[in-house]
Amino acid sequence: MARRLAVLAGGGPLPGEVIGAAQAAGREVFVVAFEGETDPGVVEGVPHQWVTLGAVGRTLRALRAAGSEDVVMIGPVRRPSLANLRLDWRGMQLLGKLGLGAGQGDDRLFKLIVGELEGEGFKVIGADDVVGALLAPAGLLTAAAPDAMAERDIALGVEVATRLGDLDIGQAVVVQHGLVLGVEAVEGTDQLLARCAGLRRDGPGGVLVKLKKPGQERRADLPTIGPATLRAAASAGLAGIAVHAGNCMIIEQRSLIEAADRAGLFVVGVNGRA
Amino acid sequence: MARRLAVLAGGGPLPGEVIGAAQAAGREVFVVAFEGETDPGVVEGVPHQWVTLGAVGRTLRALRAAGSEDVVMIGPVRRPSLANLRLDWRGMQLLGKLGLGAGQGDDRLFKLIVGELEGEGFKVIGADDVVGALLAPAGLLTAAAPDAMAERDIALGVEVATRLGDLDIGQAVVVQHGLVLGVEAVEGTDQLLARCAGLRRDGPGGVLVKLKKPGQERRADLPTIGPATLRAAASAGLAGIAVHAGNCMIIEQRSLIEAADRAGLFVVGVNGRA
Repeated sequence: MARRLAVLAGGGPLPGEVIGAAQAAGREVFVVAFEGETDPGVVEGVPHQWVTLGAVGRTLRALRAAGSEDVVMIGPVRRPSLANLRLDWRGMQLLGKLGLGAGQGDDRLFKLIVGELEGEGFKVIGADDVVGALLAPAGLLTAAAPDAMAERDIALGVEVATRLGDLDIGQAVVVQHGLVLGVEAVEGTDQLLARCAGLRRDGPGGVLVKLKKPGQERRADLPTIGPATLRAAASAGLAGIAVHAGNCMIIEQRSLIEAADRAGLFVVGVNGRA
Repeated sequence: MARRLAVLAGGGPLPGEVIGAAQAAGREVFVVAFEGETDPGVVEGVPHQWVTLGAVGRTLRALRAAGSEDVVMIGPVRRPSLANLRLDWRGMQLLGKLGLGAGQGDDRLFKLIVGELEGEGFKVIGADDVVGALLAPAGLLTAAAPDAMAERDIALGVEVATRLGDLDIGQAVVVQHGLVLGVEAVEGTDQLLARCAGLRRDGPGGVLVKLKKPGQERRADLPTIGPATLRAAASAGLAGIAVHAGNCMIIEQRSLIEAADRAGLFVVGVNGRA
């Protein structure tokens, strides 16, 4: 009998994917939903509790009360202001460890949270351990393949995204014909793609490159693409998407690939510095 | 008698500032205006010729016919697609030197153009040589000053902008409370600020940091701020702007500072790697 799985659910469709996959595998699931972050539709019909992001003590008590042993964190969480955090006592202690304003990105925060949960006896596992099929394989996934120009754009995108990741800024970059059209910070990949639609140069080409940050805690906030990413890339007129093989999750992978094939875009798993 | 000044005019208000300053100093001015880039209002009443960006031979002939000896390049130019370049023979030779798709940013292109002009006997000078008052001085320019949090955000912004500049990606970054809200690529600083208005966290603070790229050819595309930048920063709720002292131009400096003082924003010239 598999241990009960607790899902700390961020925003977007990804927590729903993980919950569904775990339940389909016969695991009992308990969800901690974060006010203003988690999509209410995701927790409907699943045992859950709503908390504020800063209610760390309350979250730990909920996890224990639910008898969870394994914990998975999945889905993006917007880093809130101090005023919106609504910290409880335990949250304040955690924030003290983090050092207010010290971290420039999210990775340091996630590492601290993982340490805190494991210190309390929980086992933090990656979403890809629950739904292994989500991870992007290496190599070409689509009928369309990158041409020579796209290969060069991918190589440049990998270099730039890796350096951005070193700075803990973002995971994604859009390159067209050797020109970096846009760079992701906190706005997210969908907004990046939306603005690049208006920034691209005439003519074909352009690639989205999305990589895990080097050294990033892989049990939280792994880079992800889904059908919405594919649609946004197609709308932006891009030729395709390159994702970090073994380090980027693809949700609804089959329908994403089908949509890519219909639209004539390529999707390829590439190597990066993990 | 000062030598006749040719202005290769990119977009925005900056070419108009430089033309006005040169004329006020008693210099004769001839403007090369680029179709789709130069603001027609800027060249009204000033001797000028319209060309396409790719018409390199025609531009050189126009400069010679106008008797220009000094050439200044000023104002942003959107890097066009090959189809939009409308290259003449000389333009094709220049592109051959550049190597199609080889450069990831603009700096390499500008260096090549400067070399080409100087090879033809023109002297390329920086806009700041024409209008020295445009350069940001070091230190605080406003009544408001950065607080301790803003000082930390500026330090982080300088680090990130310098690394982005090393990659020849962009010149500007917005930081709030240790979090990089946005990073500029080809969209420009105004669009960066507009999107950061929606990305900022509750609570005060946030800074725009704008620096020259390390090693960037300073006779083209020096970073610039103007009253529109100040208004956009204020609309985005930022606390202030840090610019590269001695390496960033401030247009309409006096009215910009007055507007900053009215809005309670700081503007400060900071050191960066030039």
